[in-house]
Amino acid sequence: LIVVVAIPLFEKMTALDAVGPYEVLWRLPDVDVVFVGKEKGTIESERPLGLRVDKTLDEVPAPDVVLVPGGSHTDDMVADKPLVDWVRQAHETSTYTVSVCTGALILGAAGILEGLDATTHWGEDETLEDYGAHYVPKRIVKEGKVITGAGVSAGIDTALRLAAELRGENIAKAIQLLIEYDPEPPFHTGSREDAPPEIKKLAGQLHAYNQGKGPAPASGG
Amino acid sequence: LIVVVAIPLFEKMTALDAVGPYEVLWRLPDVDVVFVGKEKGTIESERPLGLRVDKTLDEVPAPDVVLVPGGSHTDDMVADKPLVDWVRQAHETSTYTVSVCTGALILGAAGILEGLDATTHWGEDETLEDYGAHYVPKRIVKEGKVITGAGVSAGIDTALRLAAELRGENIAKAIQLLIEYDPEPPFHTGSREDAPPEIKKLAGQLHAYNQGKGPAPASGG
Repeated sequence: LIVVVAIPLFEKMTALDAVGPYEVLWRLPDVDVVFVGKEKGTIESERPLGLRVDKTLDEVPAPDVVLVPGGSHTDDMVADKPLVDWVRQAHETSTYTVSVCTGALILGAAGILEGLDATTHWGEDETLEDYGAHYVPKRIVKEGKVITGAGVSAGIDTALRLAAELRGENIAKAIQLLIEYDPEPPFHTGSREDAPPEIKKLAGQLHAYNQGKGPAPASGG
Repeated sequence: LIVVVAIPLFEKMTALDAVGPYEVLWRLPDVDVVFVGKEKGTIESERPLGLRVDKTLDEVPAPDVVLVPGGSHTDDMVADKPLVDWVRQAHETSTYTVSVCTGALILGAAGILEGLDATTHWGEDETLEDYGAHYVPKRIVKEGKVITGAGVSAGIDTALRLAAELRGENIAKAIQLLIEYDPEPPFHTGSREDAPPEIKKLAGQLHAYNQGKGPAPASGG
């Protein structure tokens, strides 16, 4: 039986939130990954990378797996009624409902995280709790069929875990080898716990700059 | 001064090879990431994900950084004369010439790796040596201005290293925090050295299946 994984794409999303999981999941036997959106055609991610929407949300109302990426324009995301409504409805019949990064806020806006432990990008922990979730600073949080992943790059870890749920651990292990996922982060600053204060400050400045809301930060060393 | 990073996109490429580095590099101050290709419009990655080419190769003949992704259809890639010729020419004036995964074979076909240490996807180590390179089983290999990264997911590590070269370590550290790159691979099978024989065998079967050249492998456990 084919498992259909639907990944919604939307304007100003974070591309890696979707493409990391895609690169893991399309390799699974008898799994179809489909990119859905409000309209067919090209959407532009946060800094314009054009990604193609292959089917409309209406055309894929009941996928087996819903995997929701995020972005930093979170106010727009949670106010996107067609997207949030689609996620809410798809969740009713899904086998797994998954988010990466601030995709968790869309799950929250759809009412899916009420009373659940969940994770998201470290910068949106409080927003997540506004939706009745309990933020847990973990890479992946699984609550029944709801799986939430941490920020951006966590989509790869999350998808490997999901791959094991769908097709068994050995297949997931083989995919980890095929994508040579043996990470060697050059620095020890990937989490809020590990990053020193000056790097956290610089990250805030860089984030503002990336959103067009501040000057280019000095490198500070 | 703006640094232009050109990432060529081509049919049947591996999407994450390009999107991982993009997600790191666009966040750098005064850096423009541009997706180039033979024609403007949409190309399809290995399993169809449509990615948009924004400028033709001819329009970006001399970027500061050339970053070449790979794919598993390596015979087609190295026979792609416009692509290989563009890489060869762009390398003449680049500040950095970078590859991810089997993008190293394109560098090889362009004559760039002759006599150099280099890395690539573990499955193409011997092919790399056919181009006069010396394969080194490392995540990232830097030889002067030529930086090669290992398979698929290694593009993220490679891009963070490049980010530090371009804009300093602190900015790179801040980006690592922004993309929450604190990886927790669920298994210990991400490299050829770590994966046990049965997972290597399964990976080979899965790769054949993914290329339409074999049956869906049994999960084997």
